[in-house]
Amino acid sequence: MVGIGFNGHAQEELFGGQQIVSPEIHEDDTVTFRFMAPNADSVKLTGDFLPTEKIKTPMGEMDVPKKVSLTKDDKGIWTYTTEALSPELYSYSFLVDDLKAIDPNNPFLIRDVASVTNVLLVGDGQADLYRVNDVPHGSVAKRWYDSPGLDMDRRLTIYTPPGYESSTEKYPVLYLLHGAGGDEEAWMDLGRTSQIMDNLIAQGTAKPMIVVMPNGNVSQDAAPGLGSDGYFKPQFMAPQTMNGTYEYNFMDIIKFTENNYRVIADKEHRAIAGLSMGGFHSYHISRYYPNTFDYVGLFSAALMPREDASGKVYTDIDKGLKTQMENGYNLYWIGIGKTDFLYKANEEYRKKLDHMGMPYEYVESEGGHIWRNWRIYLSQFAPKLF
Amino acid sequence: MVGIGFNGHAQEELFGGQQIVSPEIHEDDTVTFRFMAPNADSVKLTGDFLPTEKIKTPMGEMDVPKKVSLTKDDKGIWTYTTEALSPELYSYSFLVDDLKAIDPNNPFLIRDVASVTNVLLVGDGQADLYRVNDVPHGSVAKRWYDSPGLDMDRRLTIYTPPGYESSTEKYPVLYLLHGAGGDEEAWMDLGRTSQIMDNLIAQGTAKPMIVVMPNGNVSQDAAPGLGSDGYFKPQFMAPQTMNGTYEYNFMDIIKFTENNYRVIADKEHRAIAGLSMGGFHSYHISRYYPNTFDYVGLFSAALMPREDASGKVYTDIDKGLKTQMENGYNLYWIGIGKTDFLYKANEEYRKKLDHMGMPYEYVESEGGHIWRNWRIYLSQFAPKLF
Repeated sequence: MVGIGFNGHAQEELFGGQQIVSPEIHEDDTVTFRFMAPNADSVKLTGDFLPTEKIKTPMGEMDVPKKVSLTKDDKGIWTYTTEALSPELYSYSFLVDDLKAIDPNNPFLIRDVASVTNVLLVGDGQADLYRVNDVPHGSVAKRWYDSPGLDMDRRLTIYTPPGYESSTEKYPVLYLLHGAGGDEEAWMDLGRTSQIMDNLIAQGTAKPMIVVMPNGNVSQDAAPGLGSDGYFKPQFMAPQTMNGTYEYNFMDIIKFTENNYRVIADKEHRAIAGLSMGGFHSYHISRYYPNTFDYVGLFSAALMPREDASGKVYTDIDKGLKTQMENGYNLYWIGIGKTDFLYKANEEYRKKLDHMGMPYEYVESEGGHIWRNWRIYLSQFAPKLF
Repeated sequence: MVGIGFNGHAQEELFGGQQIVSPEIHEDDTVTFRFMAPNADSVKLTGDFLPTEKIKTPMGEMDVPKKVSLTKDDKGIWTYTTEALSPELYSYSFLVDDLKAIDPNNPFLIRDVASVTNVLLVGDGQADLYRVNDVPHGSVAKRWYDSPGLDMDRRLTIYTPPGYESSTEKYPVLYLLHGAGGDEEAWMDLGRTSQIMDNLIAQGTAKPMIVVMPNGNVSQDAAPGLGSDGYFKPQFMAPQTMNGTYEYNFMDIIKFTENNYRVIADKEHRAIAGLSMGGFHSYHISRYYPNTFDYVGLFSAALMPREDASGKVYTDIDKGLKTQMENGYNLYWIGIGKTDFLYKANEEYRKKLDHMGMPYEYVESEGGHIWRNWRIYLSQFAPKLF
């Protein structure tokens, strides 16, 4: 007889709960989902492995996964089995009589903005990069840095590569920025950054590097629940998210990193990349400080001008880009999915760069504005660094 | 127009979802819970702020929170308002037509063993210790240590106090152990350890110290989803959990800590404490290595003998305790709740200590085998250290 760390809910589930297996990943990479609901009239499933359909949103038409119906057996267990899925980290939810439900048999959930969904990992290949494999592991720290520019202590996530603590070596740094609605947790939780970096470094595909994942919402000192605002429901767009103060004060983050870690503190050993809003940030930061980064990555970047952009970092953009080009850099990498609602904005930006003669590398992937692409872009971008 | 880091589910919720406020914490610390379900026949709420009732389990009778019914309005929103709640971190779930549902308007969830529930923080006083306040913050790192004894690289969580990185000072260390079904995430996520320590240190109530939170399940290298076993459904009792190998090989953890951090590496500056199974571990480790820790904390400890305990650390227990007593220590602290199912085992253990003349400090609290007590015990125990 032993102790157990549970609360009342858990007790009842442990001792009285129904134990069914869901999701069940079969040898052929088909997946069976199960949900026990004897009295429900319908149980549906939605997940990013299902075919998509278009819906209208204030941001234009978007592709969202279809819903499929599960079939009920005589015990009240509803079941659905997918086609064979390609290797990936997928997310899904049930809809029970049209109400969203999490899978009570799968404790793995990831929050994305204010929404929480179950996740599963299928297959090998690319998905193996997202696994914890038998390779040396880096460390992940949550630190607080002083931002005099924003007049706050702020929280960030920092990955140091395997061997960092036991060596005296200095390392290059990738600054990796999240999208709107995200925070300093996003690249770890949704992006599997530490797993990707551990695996790429073990393969010899990427060089050992430090990865700094700050919080790009200047109205927050930390992610919801982990900062002074306590538990609050995160918004799609946090206040002041893109008023230029984040970009302007980014040097506080670089200064903290270079003062606190053994880094090679020069342009040749600094990279910046971000997804969506983080791509917007990376674009502006690398241009406003045009001799700071030798590597820039824009992942599904929000590149269109903002009507409400007022900060001084948003003035003289073309002049800044020209200076950045003239100063030179090693890599300016742009990746976007064919069905991304930002595709057109990226196309126009590329035309502008072409016109200026500003060199870049371009990758066009399948799919839209989704984490699947951002994990893939990171695994393509990181090996090109340093 | 900006980018956003979302998946298909989030999109629909952001653009099509119903936005209601739940939970709403009122000025007088009553709380209103809301759930939108126009077509449901019943919506109930269960949470650890509700009165309890006894249920029978294989571990004997246990107290679990009652369920209360919500009231539906003409828009299909179900509502329940509590009495004024005392300051605490609470957890809750809905039951919609008797199926467990998370609160779609509250993105804060904590996993406990294999169960996930929503959480909320109410009031000040003790609850303020669980908040991120405007005080200096320590760092929290996830590290991998080599355990030659268990022939694995294993993951642990380590808290370093504010100022650690910028000083040359050496610090004392508290080893803080989780219960069955927990892992190296539990004391941070459910126990709010970094918040408690930051706040106690800022108050001057606790001395700056390092807190090491290892994984006590020797069959795992890391928490579910964060180790080489990938995503798996955690069990109440992991294999080999209490076969003595964890206790026997605990020196690997101490060695890692003392080799990698600026610590005062002597008995006077080492403490060990744990909850439930972690209390069992702390009891055995501190006794088997009887001149290692000057401070021992048993929080709702699983102290009864195990019939299947076979490891050599479980032999000669009385002799070991006597040696530990003769070697001397600063504090042997026992805390348990009046309704804990381990109350009796703790009572018997105290009788044994009384009989031996082995001194200890004893705190008997309200309530049972719950995280509320373990957070309180930590906030009582930490100020007594070093």
